[in-house]
Amino acid sequence: MTGAAGDTAVDGAAGPTLSPQEKADLHAWWRAANYLAVGQIYLLDNPLLRRDLVPDDVKPRLLGHWGTTPGLNFVYTHLNRVIRQQDVDAIFMAGPGHGGPAAVASAYLDGTYSEFYPHITPDEDGLRALFRQFSFPGGIPSHVAPETPGSIHEGGELGYVLSHAYGAVMDNPDLIATAVVGDGEFETGPLAASWHANKFVDPVHDGAVLPILHLNGWKIANPTIPARIHRSELEALLTGYGHEVFTVEGDDPEVLHEVMATTMDRVIGRIRQIQQAARSGSATGRRPWPMILLVTPKGWTGPKMIDGLQYEGTWRSHQVPLTATRSNDEHRAMLQDWMRSYRPEELFDADGTVVERIRALAPAGDRRMSANPHANGGLLRKPLRLRDFRERGVPVSAPGASVHEPTRVMGDYLLDVIRENPDNFKLVGPDETASNRLDAVYQVTDKVWQGEITELDEHLAHSGRVVEVLSEHTCQGILEGYLLTGRHGLFSCYEAFIHLVDSMFNQHAKWLKVTNGIGWRAPISSLNYLLTSHVWRQDHNGFSHQDPGFVDHVMNKKAEVVRAYFPPDTNTLLSTIEHCLGTEQYVNVIVAGKQPCFDWLSPDEAGFHCARGLGIWDWASNEAGDPDVVIACAGDVPTLEALAAVSILRTELPELRIRFVNVVDLMRLQDDSEHPHGLSARDFDGVFTTDRPVIFAYHGYPWLIHRLTYRRTGHANIHVRGYQEEGTTSTPFDMVMMNDMDRYHLVIDVIDRVPSLRSHAAQLRQRMVDARARARRWTRDHGDDIPEVRDWTWAGAMGSDEGVPAAGALSDTSADFSPADAMPRN
Amino acid sequence: MTGAAGDTAVDGAAGPTLSPQEKADLHAWWRAANYLAVGQIYLLDNPLLRRDLVPDDVKPRLLGHWGTTPGLNFVYTHLNRVIRQQDVDAIFMAGPGHGGPAAVASAYLDGTYSEFYPHITPDEDGLRALFRQFSFPGGIPSHVAPETPGSIHEGGELGYVLSHAYGAVMDNPDLIATAVVGDGEFETGPLAASWHANKFVDPVHDGAVLPILHLNGWKIANPTIPARIHRSELEALLTGYGHEVFTVEGDDPEVLHEVMATTMDRVIGRIRQIQQAARSGSATGRRPWPMILLVTPKGWTGPKMIDGLQYEGTWRSHQVPLTATRSNDEHRAMLQDWMRSYRPEELFDADGTVVERIRALAPAGDRRMSANPHANGGLLRKPLRLRDFRERGVPVSAPGASVHEPTRVMGDYLLDVIRENPDNFKLVGPDETASNRLDAVYQVTDKVWQGEITELDEHLAHSGRVVEVLSEHTCQGILEGYLLTGRHGLFSCYEAFIHLVDSMFNQHAKWLKVTNGIGWRAPISSLNYLLTSHVWRQDHNGFSHQDPGFVDHVMNKKAEVVRAYFPPDTNTLLSTIEHCLGTEQYVNVIVAGKQPCFDWLSPDEAGFHCARGLGIWDWASNEAGDPDVVIACAGDVPTLEALAAVSILRTELPELRIRFVNVVDLMRLQDDSEHPHGLSARDFDGVFTTDRPVIFAYHGYPWLIHRLTYRRTGHANIHVRGYQEEGTTSTPFDMVMMNDMDRYHLVIDVIDRVPSLRSHAAQLRQRMVDARARARRWTRDHGDDIPEVRDWTWAGAMGSDEGVPAAGALSDTSADFSPADAMPRN
Repeated sequence: MTGAAGDTAVDGAAGPTLSPQEKADLHAWWRAANYLAVGQIYLLDNPLLRRDLVPDDVKPRLLGHWGTTPGLNFVYTHLNRVIRQQDVDAIFMAGPGHGGPAAVASAYLDGTYSEFYPHITPDEDGLRALFRQFSFPGGIPSHVAPETPGSIHEGGELGYVLSHAYGAVMDNPDLIATAVVGDGEFETGPLAASWHANKFVDPVHDGAVLPILHLNGWKIANPTIPARIHRSELEALLTGYGHEVFTVEGDDPEVLHEVMATTMDRVIGRIRQIQQAARSGSATGRRPWPMILLVTPKGWTGPKMIDGLQYEGTWRSHQVPLTATRSNDEHRAMLQDWMRSYRPEELFDADGTVVERIRALAPAGDRRMSANPHANGGLLRKPLRLRDFRERGVPVSAPGASVHEPTRVMGDYLLDVIRENPDNFKLVGPDETASNRLDAVYQVTDKVWQGEITELDEHLAHSGRVVEVLSEHTCQGILEGYLLTGRHGLFSCYEAFIHLVDSMFNQHAKWLKVTNGIGWRAPISSLNYLLTSHVWRQDHNGFSHQDPGFVDHVMNKKAEVVRAYFPPDTNTLLSTIEHCLGTEQYVNVIVAGKQPCFDWLSPDEAGFHCARGLGIWDWASNEAGDPDVVIACAGDVPTLEALAAVSILRTELPELRIRFVNVVDLMRLQDDSEHPHGLSARDFDGVFTTDRPVIFAYHGYPWLIHRLTYRRTGHANIHVRGYQEEGTTSTPFDMVMMNDMDRYHLVIDVIDRVPSLRSHAAQLRQRMVDARARARRWTRDHGDDIPEVRDWTWAGAMGSDEGVPAAGALSDTSADFSPADAMPRN
Repeated sequence: MTGAAGDTAVDGAAGPTLSPQEKADLHAWWRAANYLAVGQIYLLDNPLLRRDLVPDDVKPRLLGHWGTTPGLNFVYTHLNRVIRQQDVDAIFMAGPGHGGPAAVASAYLDGTYSEFYPHITPDEDGLRALFRQFSFPGGIPSHVAPETPGSIHEGGELGYVLSHAYGAVMDNPDLIATAVVGDGEFETGPLAASWHANKFVDPVHDGAVLPILHLNGWKIANPTIPARIHRSELEALLTGYGHEVFTVEGDDPEVLHEVMATTMDRVIGRIRQIQQAARSGSATGRRPWPMILLVTPKGWTGPKMIDGLQYEGTWRSHQVPLTATRSNDEHRAMLQDWMRSYRPEELFDADGTVVERIRALAPAGDRRMSANPHANGGLLRKPLRLRDFRERGVPVSAPGASVHEPTRVMGDYLLDVIRENPDNFKLVGPDETASNRLDAVYQVTDKVWQGEITELDEHLAHSGRVVEVLSEHTCQGILEGYLLTGRHGLFSCYEAFIHLVDSMFNQHAKWLKVTNGIGWRAPISSLNYLLTSHVWRQDHNGFSHQDPGFVDHVMNKKAEVVRAYFPPDTNTLLSTIEHCLGTEQYVNVIVAGKQPCFDWLSPDEAGFHCARGLGIWDWASNEAGDPDVVIACAGDVPTLEALAAVSILRTELPELRIRFVNVVDLMRLQDDSEHPHGLSARDFDGVFTTDRPVIFAYHGYPWLIHRLTYRRTGHANIHVRGYQEEGTTSTPFDMVMMNDMDRYHLVIDVIDRVPSLRSHAAQLRQRMVDARARARRWTRDHGDDIPEVRDWTWAGAMGSDEGVPAAGALSDTSADFSPADAMPRN
């Protein structure tokens, strides 16, 4: 399966692939790209080296990564050739993302850079500006970045290039994503897992990924594993990942250009064979996809030796090989020799413009990889066709009168989304779609799977809207790649384990933040998370499955890109998902349960409540603008416990004036100066009061509520109950008791914080203490929740019909702020 | 390289491995383990099935995972055999950790369980208690957990079993860690990367890992990738990972016992051959380590069909196959038939005690895998020999009079640690040890590496204390495994990318919290992180490398297990690392820079300051117990900027009384009711005052300081500057300016918050605004920091020697609390 380096036969054709002129031209492009890369790293001035370098020509702080750059330039050079010759629709993704100078150099050579950044002109002034801005204050970072034309893959954290590439080609049947995998990156977990993403690419409806494993042998200070195992072991590994390996190896450009050109033709040919076979229906089973193993020296064409030490071909050329080029004349002379070795006088004309012979090597227009619209996916993005969530809403005759599993009903809504958007929406998850009860989608689609399919399997097919792989990293990477190329999607995941992608979320949120400031980047769809199987219902999974902290992590990123929602029931979940799927440039985190949950709000009420983001529930309150206490909640289980506490208080202490507030959109709690969703001080104080105790039952770690309400006038009165890392094996009610967020404890909190109750309600307080002890004992004895809790209903607890307003009682005449004051839902 | 299933020849020996009696005995153990597993999942009573099951015999809530369990039991059965016959020192690690019933069953069969938990007696009452406690309130979780004898690997999040196993065997030359890898877990990134951990195991000084890839074919609701690619592809992949594959495949126990026994003998033999060859010096290069590919049905021996659907051999047996055993008589009868199929009457005697014939199959004493002391590593742990950090301290003639790179000097300290602890300390990192400037350690050790070593390589060797692999997941997993088996270590990592292991940290912190409550678990060494290359010095890496939020994530875990330190200079870093390396049962996070940094404190002062955790720096203050303003800081760059701000204020506004507070131990800020390190209200108020403005320059996201000081009297006066996600390409000072944490902005903050200054210092305020604009322009023009900042020194800025107290000025006569009041440093 391995193509030999010296084998220039192209599927039966004979003779060299390149004419001498073609080879010289390719080499000229490569020299130009390398020259531009070195110039970016070192030079402030004298960009064409028309005079000898002086100290002030060199940047005072030399920052950048040379080592990977010439290899990336080599790949780019040859991709341009095959794109031109075969009209390939390709994008370029640099896994070794520190090679920013390479991507920028090629974007400059093909003209895109000056189109996007008109001040970087195609002449000597432009060259000077191009060099100066690199890793310079106010300029561009040293790695491939949102600022880089043609990029959908930030060069920051390593490991995501393949999953991004696979996401990009899904539902883009003509696209080839060329993904250079660094041999350092190769060692990371996310990258190692993502090789298997080829099991989820459908050769009929999807495009192809061309992985190019670039073995330059070294990381920062060490050799790489794939470079130091037997080549046969590495080839076995890549074969095992499902690839046919074509090797291009050497350090003589004269030879390598020919081998690379031949290999490029072969791998593109192989991709087309696989696709044509599948699309014509003549394919029999999964075939290995081609990949290139490119073995070239690190820092290729750079200084071979510096101060007696080998640089080219070692880790020493990872960053900046010559570091003292301002102060050390010898180093500066070496830099000059190095740059002149690319013969700039042949590459640029008298004005400093790239010579036409080189320019002509670039593909035309959108075929230029730097200008390919797939890499600016917002340009191609079509809004999702979304139905009104009310069509899937569940009828609610009275609050708490019925029960649904919220995510199961959401599955019905997603079914509609998939049916009406059959080629630009993906649902991804780590083998949890059914466990998270979204399996209604299988009525209209399947799980995509290129592995063997047996008669035992259900809903597995060669194409489908659902991608399930037991790697949160691969799920996230595929979805990111899909969104960045202008499509839509949702990632459903167990709440506790979404922390696996904390770091990927960081990078994506930073990408969104930066692209908000780049005019030529069109907005992309939001990254939507549904976090379910959440902390409060980990009955058998226990402590290791309890962590509601992803939202805390998300909150550290810029307010302009993050949103968090805690719908308390089925209809509010539907309203939330409809909203989130329609947004752009955000990360939306939705936390919702899959277990049976009372329905509190009708579809219309839910839409109204979610539009406001938070609000007073009149039917649960018994005050007319002047409460003794505010009971607030966010999350499905907290809402249940808070309402149960209200039912106890209203029965036992009918004179106590209670305001009940439910929060769906957590960002509403912040000040409007801190978050676009934030409530004004007037609105917040109107809902929460400035001087009454607020007992707040929250889904996650309590302090997040404090953080969000930190600047509020009544902040000192807010008392939060939430998750405290006390969990162990328990029943649902035992779990909330362990964390002091149960109904009985909330009643105790009210008694302890409303001054008039302290003596007055001492007896009730003791009964609550006793009720907790009794409930605890019951679970220990019976292994289940005590019937008084398990069988509780709002209507039953409120004792009579008067206590239970009919549905629709949630009115806009409340003390709450009016919808007209609400922020637009964005 | 692949052993065939039917090939029973053992390296030349002929005939069957097992006698009929041996085979029957092994089968009896396996039946007993399966019986105990099913009993745990279902039964409250009637543990021996001496009467027909009635509804109340069955648990009301059926929670657990059957699917993986029989396979785990099968492996355990055969490991016991080979341990007995060949006196193998082995531990068992269940990657498919949901198979908790398996690990518990075998620990009960070999007697360990009753030794650790005397109330679980070896008789019918004990059986009843054993069954009842499983996934029952107040009982044990459904997966392998800290409570499980013999476990160092929690069954929660998937993907870490191999890295844990590799960590366990390092420096344990006689130990074999048998690691069952689930085929679902196989898809995860951390697991995929960790196969290559075999490149860091030295066959001379380390033990061996025996991976057993258990292909039962299914996850929760999907087939697994390795089960649905061609077997030749899977074998190529495993070969590529560096293994010789021995396959055991089938569903007939009669055949499989023989094949498994034969294979076990062969793989143990192969491990010993490799080790003996390496240890005798006769080895020539790395040899592939053996592994077992075990292919058996999911839910093996469980119900084949339920309600017309296939269960055994499908995903349907993943959790609890019969769910209605209380209400559905037919299901209950099927459960009874299933349990009776194991013939309990042959397994337990009249008292319900395991029959001697089965008991005798367990290894003796500590050779029982459930009792192996390596799996309770604290028992074997020897404290590190640690030198007084002052021996490596740097002399400090006056504050700020000299400069060192803190982590570089820390490298000298680690050199001592390694020299004096040559076989129980590991330094792990993702190719960043040299980049993080800890390379002094290479004076006494090397980086362990079993790949090819060339003449270009430096400090690579077949054994060594340093493990470098470009996978934070593998680094963390190896270190966890090493610590859990009773040794010591440090993980050094770029600050931004430590988020990659957020989720692994979660699981480890939960493990520590739970083990604190388990009497038989001996304490293990703390998990120490050095986070460097931090957010404030990402000059060329830029925005994608900026995230100081790991500490925020850590703070969500129990106060009893987490610690965070921000040493401001070299000597305080040395003091901190000495302290942390001596602790047990914590996660210590140390954030420190690698760039040149002023020395503020002498070694003795540093020791004193770190023992207190925070304190007033008298030499930077000019008040005598009644400051107008408190300037506080935590972190090296914030300390620099805060001192520079003080130098401006003391020069420009000499009448302003400033108190300067530096915080090393962040937990000191919390109330002593919330964290064991917390200061009492009296001490905190004594340092920070209750009513003066506090301007706090903090290394990370500002709100963490608010969170920690939330309950403090003067909390409303604390104004925090920190990182705000504004970074882009910049110089060091530009970076702090972008985040408003620079010296000029801190001066502005003081002016804006000290009422007397508002009009009085308006001119100075404007000069600060101008200075910022000037500094910004300078960086844009010159690409470097403005000289007035770059060349600033404390002594120079304070104008004369009077302003610069001699070293030693940090006295215990300050207004600060005295060391006697300090919490013990733990």
